[in-house]
Amino acid sequence: MKTSLLKFIFILTAVFYSAATYAENGYDLWLRKGPAKPVKVVVSGKKSAILDAAKQELTEFWQGTPNATIQLVVKADKSLKTDGFKINGNVITAGNDAGVLYGVYDMLRRMASGQSTDNVLSNPSYQRRVLNHWDNPTGNIEHGFAGKSIFWRNEKDSVTVNAGDLSRWKDYARLNASIGINGAVINNVNAQPMMLSAPYLKKYAAIAAAVRPYGMKIYMAPNFASPIRQGGLKTADPLDPEVIKYWQAKAKEIYALIPDFGGFLIKANSEGQPGPQDYKRTHVDGANMLADALKPYGGIVMWRAFVYAPNDPDRAKQAVQEFMPFDGQFRDNVIIQVKNGPVDFQPREPFSPLFGAMKKTSVMPEFQIMQEYLGQAKHLVFLSTMWEECLKSDTYQMGAGSTVGKVTDGSVYPQKYTAIAGVSNIGLDSNWTAHPFAAANWYAFGRLGWDNTLTSAQIADEWLKLTFAPVTDEGKAAMAGKNWDAGFLAPVKKMMLDSREAAVNYMMPLGLHHQFSAYDHYGPGSWYAPARTRADWTPPYYHKADKQGIGFNRTETGTDAVSQYHEPLSSTFSSLENVPEMYLLWFQHVPWTYKMKSGRTLWDELCIKYDTGVKQVRQFQVVWDMAQPFVDKERFENVQSRLRIHARDAQVWKDGSILYFQTFSGMPIPYEVERPVRDLSYIQSVAPASIK
Amino acid sequence: MKTSLLKFIFILTAVFYSAATYAENGYDLWLRKGPAKPVKVVVSGKKSAILDAAKQELTEFWQGTPNATIQLVVKADKSLKTDGFKINGNVITAGNDAGVLYGVYDMLRRMASGQSTDNVLSNPSYQRRVLNHWDNPTGNIEHGFAGKSIFWRNEKDSVTVNAGDLSRWKDYARLNASIGINGAVINNVNAQPMMLSAPYLKKYAAIAAAVRPYGMKIYMAPNFASPIRQGGLKTADPLDPEVIKYWQAKAKEIYALIPDFGGFLIKANSEGQPGPQDYKRTHVDGANMLADALKPYGGIVMWRAFVYAPNDPDRAKQAVQEFMPFDGQFRDNVIIQVKNGPVDFQPREPFSPLFGAMKKTSVMPEFQIMQEYLGQAKHLVFLSTMWEECLKSDTYQMGAGSTVGKVTDGSVYPQKYTAIAGVSNIGLDSNWTAHPFAAANWYAFGRLGWDNTLTSAQIADEWLKLTFAPVTDEGKAAMAGKNWDAGFLAPVKKMMLDSREAAVNYMMPLGLHHQFSAYDHYGPGSWYAPARTRADWTPPYYHKADKQGIGFNRTETGTDAVSQYHEPLSSTFSSLENVPEMYLLWFQHVPWTYKMKSGRTLWDELCIKYDTGVKQVRQFQVVWDMAQPFVDKERFENVQSRLRIHARDAQVWKDGSILYFQTFSGMPIPYEVERPVRDLSYIQSVAPASIK
Repeated sequence: MKTSLLKFIFILTAVFYSAATYAENGYDLWLRKGPAKPVKVVVSGKKSAILDAAKQELTEFWQGTPNATIQLVVKADKSLKTDGFKINGNVITAGNDAGVLYGVYDMLRRMASGQSTDNVLSNPSYQRRVLNHWDNPTGNIEHGFAGKSIFWRNEKDSVTVNAGDLSRWKDYARLNASIGINGAVINNVNAQPMMLSAPYLKKYAAIAAAVRPYGMKIYMAPNFASPIRQGGLKTADPLDPEVIKYWQAKAKEIYALIPDFGGFLIKANSEGQPGPQDYKRTHVDGANMLADALKPYGGIVMWRAFVYAPNDPDRAKQAVQEFMPFDGQFRDNVIIQVKNGPVDFQPREPFSPLFGAMKKTSVMPEFQIMQEYLGQAKHLVFLSTMWEECLKSDTYQMGAGSTVGKVTDGSVYPQKYTAIAGVSNIGLDSNWTAHPFAAANWYAFGRLGWDNTLTSAQIADEWLKLTFAPVTDEGKAAMAGKNWDAGFLAPVKKMMLDSREAAVNYMMPLGLHHQFSAYDHYGPGSWYAPARTRADWTPPYYHKADKQGIGFNRTETGTDAVSQYHEPLSSTFSSLENVPEMYLLWFQHVPWTYKMKSGRTLWDELCIKYDTGVKQVRQFQVVWDMAQPFVDKERFENVQSRLRIHARDAQVWKDGSILYFQTFSGMPIPYEVERPVRDLSYIQSVAPASIK
Repeated sequence: MKTSLLKFIFILTAVFYSAATYAENGYDLWLRKGPAKPVKVVVSGKKSAILDAAKQELTEFWQGTPNATIQLVVKADKSLKTDGFKINGNVITAGNDAGVLYGVYDMLRRMASGQSTDNVLSNPSYQRRVLNHWDNPTGNIEHGFAGKSIFWRNEKDSVTVNAGDLSRWKDYARLNASIGINGAVINNVNAQPMMLSAPYLKKYAAIAAAVRPYGMKIYMAPNFASPIRQGGLKTADPLDPEVIKYWQAKAKEIYALIPDFGGFLIKANSEGQPGPQDYKRTHVDGANMLADALKPYGGIVMWRAFVYAPNDPDRAKQAVQEFMPFDGQFRDNVIIQVKNGPVDFQPREPFSPLFGAMKKTSVMPEFQIMQEYLGQAKHLVFLSTMWEECLKSDTYQMGAGSTVGKVTDGSVYPQKYTAIAGVSNIGLDSNWTAHPFAAANWYAFGRLGWDNTLTSAQIADEWLKLTFAPVTDEGKAAMAGKNWDAGFLAPVKKMMLDSREAAVNYMMPLGLHHQFSAYDHYGPGSWYAPARTRADWTPPYYHKADKQGIGFNRTETGTDAVSQYHEPLSSTFSSLENVPEMYLLWFQHVPWTYKMKSGRTLWDELCIKYDTGVKQVRQFQVVWDMAQPFVDKERFENVQSRLRIHARDAQVWKDGSILYFQTFSGMPIPYEVERPVRDLSYIQSVAPASIK
């Protein structure tokens, strides 16, 4: 930013300095309530808990013309899919009760964010918009960064339910419904067999009851070996008649308790989890057996494609290798759940080549809302741009325009069921997600699940308005005389939209991936490769740096992973000249002295990318500090403090990565790059997250 | 630096990248030896150990015309003071043996640094140029950062002497002699009584013998309570006849062992040390009694003026208050040893008002070579500029031009003895001072003690040439084709000359002082003030920040310390408009919104100073990295690693200080200042040196 502009903004904001002092505890997220104005709500439809909820939300949140009359109408309409709705002035119409509820939330959102409420027709991109909670019955959350599970307390007490639980689950369901999420797998995919025991099923039923008035269904991630470990059988072979009976009986038991139970999510034969291959059966054998058990009740099986063997030369190829041979063999209530990228929720990956390739099988994207690999709850990273990048990636599988979004939402291939999954970042922290801006990722997942053509700019705009614009009298008074749009919305939105690219820059630019310290997937660890560790769990497997260059040769002279992509991608990714630089080191092993489009050597470009990332985060700090007059003290300081950690740790990433790769390149760090402030040996000697 | 210039330099140096690979272990410091050329040395004088040493050094280091004949002549000359010398071509003349030795070193230095050897006349500014070692008999050094003592091993084994000791002491003496240092107090001023016991005196004698051939004398810092604690008397009252006898006997015992023993350095009634005031006697009583005991043997007493009482409103005033009443009452072999500033070796202080004020008493400056308060061995801080600033400060006590240098070196006041002291930064580390650039401070102290009109630029120039220019065939080969002057000397010299101001900037700009974490005088601690701690040992005593402003009001409306300075300084320091900004907060309590000469508010200026300091250190890192092709691997990496710590910890200083003072100012940090990367609460919760 130019100094003169800085000075101007400084003068502008100095006048208002001193944090806005009105209170915000952060719990309400994007459903913040001003003093409600009177409104009359007329419901045309059979009385139901969902319609009651719709009416109540409208009444409690109404900020429009006082004493307006709003009509909520349930009525069949060919232009509406399940859950879809229309808004025309003061009338919301939907084909089902949940559609009315979504219409109510959309109307409120449109009014709060200044969008039109005329001639709105809105249908969801996916039928099932599902959160995946990696919550264990101990109450711990695998890679959870916002406290303990809101569902499970600890193994001994996990099945009890108290008033606090019910209140929290209700708000959880409201928040989800307000952004279109209609399902949740409420236990970890690394699953415990006890989840299928009677006391746990009773707890499932209680949770299902709490979220049902907001249109949400509950799903379970059962352990594939449950027939043995929960049922006492000798095998979990999916073709064994006793095993089949076990699952049929369990389905019956579940649906007796939870008539609208959504189905199963299965992680099988992946990272040590049991699965059909333990019995020389296939993914098809396993998935179809479970699908048959659920089918009578309308349940589905979401079967994860996240599989890879320890000694394969290219982990990125394995999902295609394992699943493509089965295309067309899965039941129609099986959906293959595929992570956005072929490796594992990295800061940047090309899309998984399974998308679009499986033409006779339902496929659903799995995104990770929790920032396991993107700074966890310490870094401000708005993931919407990453997901947008994936959803809009063209697979070319049915010609140009066969985007990942279109090949999964039913518009390219017929699918009986369509779905999208997001691994939740929610915990018991009073503001749900620890980092206030992490809530934007939950929000964005819901919004993209509803409409996979939305832009991240629009989502950020909405979220910021709903989350930070003043709603209470106190809040509005604190903003008097300030230009919220120019002083807050514009710069903070830009920060959000830049934030994921910044993370890519300081963590793993130019197509690098999985360069984490093994300790916690947080800090840098390109050097991490202790003896007797699986190669594919160590960063050198992915960066392949040597004296000549760096990067994973996945062209036809390497692992030929490029051949899993449809033309013209296959040729493009294979070509050193044509591969997009953001994927360069994903697909190619490139000499340090290779001349980049910028005219710099690869080495210089790499260093400058890391440095740019650090500088971007420092600029985020400035943006946020300048936003202080527009934000309540508690949320301002929470974000400010996290941005400090963010900036510091971005520097650790930059320093560790540059110094380590320099041991291969032997080239000087370009002098316009800020110098490292720690020795490589020090960074290597500690868990990077312990650097403070 | 302009990007285009950076690019040019980059291209220039990239060619040479890869560290120079010739070996330098760092031990030789500025006495590095190339392959000697043959030389004939003719000595005109009575054979002596010193003349032998002079001849040997010349022979071993000769790099001039092969087979030249150099004449070393001892001859009385009215233009020469003791230790002074003349160089005319190949003839070195001096009035004493030591003068010849100094002439030899000067000739070698001039030849190595490209200075003329014609018509050189050089006399020392001070007669006694003395290192003060704060070495305890345990082997530990108080605020020592370069390993254990070179003199004392541990209490049990402290008095033994081995071959390694003798070799180390010889090199220690050579290094000192080469820069004119001719004395050393080899135990800590916080003194142990055992130093006066027979075994320790024997050890003193051994050390004196080892350094004698290089013109050095040994001094002792005895404990003032030695008559009781070593001698078994009931008192140490300086007027007690038994006490007087004790010291007379000790003097006799010492001089029998060490005929050229230099004398005593006394820290009395200071920070808990015993002294004459314990017996209601005065500094005069104590100092004169000891002076009388030493007088028959030519010994002197250096009596420290570093005194301050716990509850005084202004510690800075106390030396003048305690000592001025005694002006004229001290024996002529007593010298009052005065720290450069009135508080305590801070990054910046105005000169002590005792300088020049005591007109009938010998006064000597005490500098601290060890960087107790200036980043210790972690920060690159060239102290010469600080000492030059002090020595050239005008006291106005005898009219304009009465600089601190002139009022202490005998040119303004008649003094029988003149002296200068430097607290040593030497330890057993293989390179003597841990940080390679800390050796420059030892060097600078010696050079300024010899000539207090030298400029820091000249000293840095000499030191860099002697320390880093190639001398061996291997080293010269490594430099082939490189422009050492442009690529190394010029930028590194500038870095040295900027380094102390950088430290002031990131530690305590604008006259702030003593803002250290109490733990170790290393990191920031402006907030440090635990209950029951002496106020004058806590930073708030010195910064006095409040909602209105910051700074210590030492004007007539405050403690009136300004009145201790001679006009026009008194009026200048008292005037908010006229006080130099570098001393602003030393003398004034200033409103946060006060408009500085830059046009900025005091608050903004303060923040920008801290930030500037951090940026300066980052630039030092660039300078050093660019110098890589000119430096051997070991020293390059040592300095590079320390500069990383330096940059990191400068940031801790900036962040902690700004965030703490912001709790008073309540003003925003200017947006051009890089944001903090840690919360104040975190920095406050740990010892800052533990931040890594």
